[in-house]
Amino acid sequence: MNVSELGEFGLIELLAEIVDRTKNSKDASWQHLLIGIGDDAAAWQVDGGIQLATTDSLVQDTHFDPKIVTWEELGWKAIAVNLSDIAAMGGVPKYALISLALPGELETDDVSSLYQGMAQIASRFGVAIVGGNIASANKTIINVTVLGSLESAPSLTRSAAVPGDRIAVTGYLGLSAAGLRMLKQNLKFDAETTQLLRQAHLKPMPRVDEGQILLRYGIKAAIDISDGLIADLTHVCQASKVSARINQNTLLIHPALKNNFKSDYLHLALSGGEDYELLFTASNQVITQIKRAVSCPVTIIGEITGEKPWHVNLVDDNGRSIPWQKAGWEHFKSQI
Amino acid sequence: MNVSELGEFGLIELLAEIVDRTKNSKDASWQHLLIGIGDDAAAWQVDGGIQLATTDSLVQDTHFDPKIVTWEELGWKAIAVNLSDIAAMGGVPKYALISLALPGELETDDVSSLYQGMAQIASRFGVAIVGGNIASANKTIINVTVLGSLESAPSLTRSAAVPGDRIAVTGYLGLSAAGLRMLKQNLKFDAETTQLLRQAHLKPMPRVDEGQILLRYGIKAAIDISDGLIADLTHVCQASKVSARINQNTLLIHPALKNNFKSDYLHLALSGGEDYELLFTASNQVITQIKRAVSCPVTIIGEITGEKPWHVNLVDDNGRSIPWQKAGWEHFKSQI
Repeated sequence: MNVSELGEFGLIELLAEIVDRTKNSKDASWQHLLIGIGDDAAAWQVDGGIQLATTDSLVQDTHFDPKIVTWEELGWKAIAVNLSDIAAMGGVPKYALISLALPGELETDDVSSLYQGMAQIASRFGVAIVGGNIASANKTIINVTVLGSLESAPSLTRSAAVPGDRIAVTGYLGLSAAGLRMLKQNLKFDAETTQLLRQAHLKPMPRVDEGQILLRYGIKAAIDISDGLIADLTHVCQASKVSARINQNTLLIHPALKNNFKSDYLHLALSGGEDYELLFTASNQVITQIKRAVSCPVTIIGEITGEKPWHVNLVDDNGRSIPWQKAGWEHFKSQI
Repeated sequence: MNVSELGEFGLIELLAEIVDRTKNSKDASWQHLLIGIGDDAAAWQVDGGIQLATTDSLVQDTHFDPKIVTWEELGWKAIAVNLSDIAAMGGVPKYALISLALPGELETDDVSSLYQGMAQIASRFGVAIVGGNIASANKTIINVTVLGSLESAPSLTRSAAVPGDRIAVTGYLGLSAAGLRMLKQNLKFDAETTQLLRQAHLKPMPRVDEGQILLRYGIKAAIDISDGLIADLTHVCQASKVSARINQNTLLIHPALKNNFKSDYLHLALSGGEDYELLFTASNQVITQIKRAVSCPVTIIGEITGEKPWHVNLVDDNGRSIPWQKAGWEHFKSQI
């Protein structure tokens, strides 16, 4: 079987098993490990707190086309997607390491712009870029590792959702995927919409402050929406051994998305991916408190149930199930 | 100017300046940073000690050809090169994050073998593999980030060599480059030599224990030999603002290298690269103590001087300068 047939998530499971078989519980590193492969970020105990670590990459022709994005936007995004993983654990991002694979013929001005984009967002979130590595390759790959910290356990994880919890999401859904489509298909909109969609796709603002607020209000289950709402909620269901029922009419859709993508704004919101919003579960009462504490919209879209098998059930206002196309961001199945 | 013309080290300098201009000394992350861009690993203060972080990648067709190496060897090496950076700081490696860019048509068995090689060396050094990322690409890139710790400052750095110090190196030099040449050119040797050279290139044993011993004996200046003896010693000279004089006849050359590469074993030892031995500077007396404490050979190859401009001067037994070809491991100038 090849990698493409098995898919990203199957491969992660296979590799996690190999690592698990060779782990040595006598090693201090394994003893102090709190969260390993399979969550937004790894977490381990250190003196005085918890260390978080996450890594993510942007690959030319898979994740970006240098002809339609600027290097500065790419730099911003490469850091942002990692900060979003730290945010999904409620952590404070601190340090970043950058590993670049670059074609020799790339202009150094472009690499400088890439780093300027990185430095911009790093500085915005108090993150220090402390090292990295540069290698030669035929296409550009930008790999970023971000280290962060948590004051104390427990962290936000994917595996803590329980039946009866409401499911809430920050911000708007689907704008990033719409932005990608606009760029790829060279769609024309008014200036405001164009900027909104481009920004959503290329300069997402990770919900770092919001993640820390969730933790402060006692939230235990959270994930960032990178693969798409349905796909990421499915990750939560599988990790928590629960199901989810969401009402398609409760999703927060931006008017610019609804008006310009009339036939499939719902599809974009459900499975577009790369929104980098936070999805979390809690009681109605706690969600009401959180709405007051954060400065972005927070929308209740459904609830966690005990229904088997573990899955996401999309319903209309009358509670009737609606089939949805399974179309997450699985990297080996859907090329952008 | 393009990346290839500027070269790896010029590019690192340029990017370090961009990061430096945007750093905010009010941020806790920058306040706690001890060593940033430009050393073997980054280091920052945490409660109870110092955190180390390093990242390195292996790029298909730049660093390896899957037709002549096994995936298990690649997995070992991808972790080993990072452990070597932690070793060069005297640290204890603890956690690894793996970021893979893979072609969809790669067999999952190959990826399993890659992870088995990683798990082998990780387990040998008490390192926990705690997370990572998988993306689709047209060629394989294996990026590894390793986090480690130091009991307390100061660490081993490149910038602490002072005139009068002797220069010492662990182990044999040039075997890895000879192994690479054997593999690329399909050279035939006896079984023992073949295994020695293949192992040196593909399954190097990072000097983790030795690095910790150096630190215990008060060594301050060290680097791991990844770019080549001359190139890495030049890094030390530039970072420390000193020069180095080394006697070509004092280098420890393995008989298998001398006998099978008669015309250029010295060139391989001086600038072959990827030996992953440690180079450090100290007094004769301290080096004698270290020789007794470690289980590998330690050889004095020259001394640090105050001669300007900062450079490496290769001499013969009579102290006469010998020109050497500047041929380090600059990734944009020398393709393997």
